[in-house]
Amino acid sequence: MRAETRLVGATIVTQDANNTVIADGELSFDASGVITYVGPRRGPVGADDQDLSGHILLPGLVNAHTHSAMTLMRGSCDDSDLATWLGVVQSLEQHITAEDVLIGLRLAMVEMIRTGTTTFADMYHWDSALLAAVVNAGMRVVAAHAVFDFADIGFSTVSPMNGREGLDHTEALAAEFAGEKLVRVRYGPHAPYTSSPEMLTEVARRAEKHGLGVEIHLAESAFEVEQNLKNYGCTPIVHADRAGLFAVPTLVAHVVHPTAEEIEILAQRGAGVSHNPVSNLKLGSGIAPLAALRDGGVLLGLGTDGAASNNDLDLFEEIKTGSLIHRGVAQKPDITAGTDLLRMATATGAAAVGFPEVGVLEPGRWADVIALQTTSSRATPMFSPTAFLSFAARGSDVTDVFIGGQQVLAAGKLTTLDEDSIRAEAAAASARLQQLAEENS
Amino acid sequence: MRAETRLVGATIVTQDANNTVIADGELSFDASGVITYVGPRRGPVGADDQDLSGHILLPGLVNAHTHSAMTLMRGSCDDSDLATWLGVVQSLEQHITAEDVLIGLRLAMVEMIRTGTTTFADMYHWDSALLAAVVNAGMRVVAAHAVFDFADIGFSTVSPMNGREGLDHTEALAAEFAGEKLVRVRYGPHAPYTSSPEMLTEVARRAEKHGLGVEIHLAESAFEVEQNLKNYGCTPIVHADRAGLFAVPTLVAHVVHPTAEEIEILAQRGAGVSHNPVSNLKLGSGIAPLAALRDGGVLLGLGTDGAASNNDLDLFEEIKTGSLIHRGVAQKPDITAGTDLLRMATATGAAAVGFPEVGVLEPGRWADVIALQTTSSRATPMFSPTAFLSFAARGSDVTDVFIGGQQVLAAGKLTTLDEDSIRAEAAAASARLQQLAEENS
Repeated sequence: MRAETRLVGATIVTQDANNTVIADGELSFDASGVITYVGPRRGPVGADDQDLSGHILLPGLVNAHTHSAMTLMRGSCDDSDLATWLGVVQSLEQHITAEDVLIGLRLAMVEMIRTGTTTFADMYHWDSALLAAVVNAGMRVVAAHAVFDFADIGFSTVSPMNGREGLDHTEALAAEFAGEKLVRVRYGPHAPYTSSPEMLTEVARRAEKHGLGVEIHLAESAFEVEQNLKNYGCTPIVHADRAGLFAVPTLVAHVVHPTAEEIEILAQRGAGVSHNPVSNLKLGSGIAPLAALRDGGVLLGLGTDGAASNNDLDLFEEIKTGSLIHRGVAQKPDITAGTDLLRMATATGAAAVGFPEVGVLEPGRWADVIALQTTSSRATPMFSPTAFLSFAARGSDVTDVFIGGQQVLAAGKLTTLDEDSIRAEAAAASARLQQLAEENS
Repeated sequence: MRAETRLVGATIVTQDANNTVIADGELSFDASGVITYVGPRRGPVGADDQDLSGHILLPGLVNAHTHSAMTLMRGSCDDSDLATWLGVVQSLEQHITAEDVLIGLRLAMVEMIRTGTTTFADMYHWDSALLAAVVNAGMRVVAAHAVFDFADIGFSTVSPMNGREGLDHTEALAAEFAGEKLVRVRYGPHAPYTSSPEMLTEVARRAEKHGLGVEIHLAESAFEVEQNLKNYGCTPIVHADRAGLFAVPTLVAHVVHPTAEEIEILAQRGAGVSHNPVSNLKLGSGIAPLAALRDGGVLLGLGTDGAASNNDLDLFEEIKTGSLIHRGVAQKPDITAGTDLLRMATATGAAAVGFPEVGVLEPGRWADVIALQTTSSRATPMFSPTAFLSFAARGSDVTDVFIGGQQVLAAGKLTTLDEDSIRAEAAAASARLQQLAEENS
C-alpha cells in the first residue's frame, strides 16, 4: 500500500465546526487510514491521485439506528395498523436463524455502502461471525446485542438472546473485538416494556464496570409512555435515568414523545439520540419534537430504523424527510434546516453513536469519506453543495466510499461484497421465512 | 414503424379498477400508440419483442402540479422563512426570459422522463415554442399559462403574461395545438390573492365558451385563507366556486387548509386536486388533510410543485412522503396507504389533470408506460410489487419510458433530449439570473 492516498478535484463539504466547503479540493490520508490533509488542491493531478472532479466529498454517513437483518422483512407489511404489522413481522422473525441474520446483514451492508453510509448503530442478534462479516465488508458498526427479560420479541430460534446470558454474550464479543477499529460493542436492553427495571440497573452497573456503552429504544409511541407511567409511575426516559443508564454512554432510539424534563435529562447527561423520522411516520408513532431536542442541546444522530418499517436504508431520504416534516407541523419553513439534518447524519451522529473519530473531514480524523457525482439533472443548477446534499441528492448519486481509508465502493463497484449472490441468498432466505410463517398461521 | 410493439416478461402493475398485477406479463400497443393487450405473456419472447423480464411495468406517472422552468432556481433558497424565500425566488424570476423558460423546461423534462413522469400539469409562462419543445420531447402536458391582474408575481421580462391579454394568449395556444394528443391547454388564473374576482368570473365564462379547463392555486397557506376571509368574507375554495370555476374542469393545486364544506364542494363538482406534500412541508404551508379529501370523494392527483420548493421532480418521493406524513400526524399507520398514493400518481391523477386516456394499463388506453428495474438491494426481497413501488422505489430505478407508444427512454438513454447540453445551458442560464439578481440587490 502506498504511503498516502490523495483524492483531488472534488468540492469538499467538511462538516467541520465552521461548515467549511472547499472548491477544487484535496483530501489525503495515510496508510493507517488517518486524514492528513484537507484543503485546496496542491498542484496538478498526479498519475497516482484519484481524480474526483465533478464530485462532492462528504464524511461517510452514520446510520444511528437500524436493525440490519430486517432487510429480509422489507415490504412484508406496509399499509396496516401497528398490531397487524407487529404480528406479520414476528411471524417471520420467529423462524429466523443465525444464518438468516448474516444474509440480511450482508444485504443491508450492500445497500448502506451504495448509499454512502459508512457507520451503523445496530440492535439485533450479534455474534462473532456477524461482527467478522462487518469487518470483512470494511464497514464500521456499533453493535448492540438485543436483550430483554420479560417479553418475547421474536428471534426464538437464535440464541443466546435473552436476559443475563445476553449480557455475558455482549461482554465476550466486546473482549473479542477490543482491538478492532471497525467494531464497538454495546449492551442492547431493548426497551423498558421488554426489560425489567432490575435488568436496566444491571446493564448500567455492568456498562460502567466494563467501560461499554448502551443502546435502547425509549419514548417511541404514546402507548409506551402511557404504559410506563402506569407500571412505574414515570415516563420512559426518567425511568431509564433512574436505572442509571445515562451515567454511561447511552444511545437512545426514537424519543418521539419526551417531556420537557426528559429533553433536559438527555442534554445534561450527554446521551446520544437517534431521530428516525421515516420509521416513526410509517408506523404512526408520531413526529419527534426535533427543534426542541436540538434547541435543548441534545446530541443528535439520524437513523433509518429497520427496513421493515422504512423500507430502505438510504440516509439521504432521512435527511430530507427529517428537515421537512417539522416545517409542515409547525407551519414554519425555517424551524429546521437541511444543514441541521446533514450534520446529524455526519458530525453529531458520529459523536452520538460513540465514534467521534469520524463524521468530519479534517486532519487527524479517520478517513471515512464518500463521493457523490453531480452530473444529474437534480444537481443542476448547483447554488450550494449543502442545499443539493440536503434536498436533491440520493444515495444513488454515491460513486465512491472509503472507510478508514479502505475503498469499499470504487466508481460504483463494490469491492468487498458480492452483490448478486447476496441478493439471491436474501431472496431465498426471505421466501423460506414467508413459507414457514404461512405454514404456522 | 411496425404494426405492434410488444413488451414482454415484466410484472405488470396495471392500476386498473381491481389493482390487477400480472406476473410474466405482456403489454402490446399498436402503431397509433394505443394499448391492444395487457395480460399474461402469449408465447415465447420473439426477436422483435422488448424483453423486460426483471422489470415492473407501471402506467407513466402524472405530475399534477409543477412549474417546470423553476428548475433554474433549484436550491436557491432552502432554509429560510417564506418571505425570504419569495424574495430570493422573485429576485431571480424577474430577470427570466422566454429563452430561460425553454431551458428550464427542457431540464425539467430530462428529470421527469428519467424518473418516470410522462404527463405533467404545469402553470407558468407558456407559448408556441415551449409547447413545441414538449411535443418534440414526446411528453404529455397540461399547460396553464399563468395570469393575474393585481399582484406582480415575477416574470416581468416575459410577455404577454398579465390579465386578459393572457387569457387571449391561452385561447390562441389552445387553438394552435388543438389536434395534438400530447398537449392540452388550460387557463391559469394564479390564485385569488393575485387575480381579482372579476378575472376569475371571466375565466369561468371563457372556459365554458371555449370548452377549456382551468388550473389554480387554492388554500395553500393559513395566511391565504385568512386574507381571503378578510377581503371577500369567504374561504378561497368557496370564493372560486362562487366565481363559477367548478362549473368547468378545474384542477386545484395544494388545498392544504380546506373547510369541511370546501371538501364537499370539490367532491360534488368533480374538481381535480393536486396534493403536493413535499412542497407544502418545505415552505411550511402545512399538511393537507389527505384522508379527509380521499374519504370525501375528491379526485386526487399528486404533484411536486416547482423545483425551487422541493428540490426535485421525482414523483416516487411524493408517493412515499405523501403516504407517510399523514400517518405520523394522526398516529395511525393505516390512515393512508402506499397504494392510495400510487393511484394518485397514476389512475386518479390522470383523470384529475384532464388526461383520462392514460394512467391505467388496459386495452384502449394510450400507451404511457414506464419500466423499473428490480435488481437493486432495495428491491430485495420483493414481498409485493406495490409495496416496492410505494416505499422503496426511486426515480433512478426507471429504465424505459414510452409515451403514446414512443420510447423516450430506452435502457436508461434519453432518445429525444440531449441531456449534457441541456444541463450546461441550464447552469449558464441560472448563473446569469443569479448575477442579475446580485447586481440589482
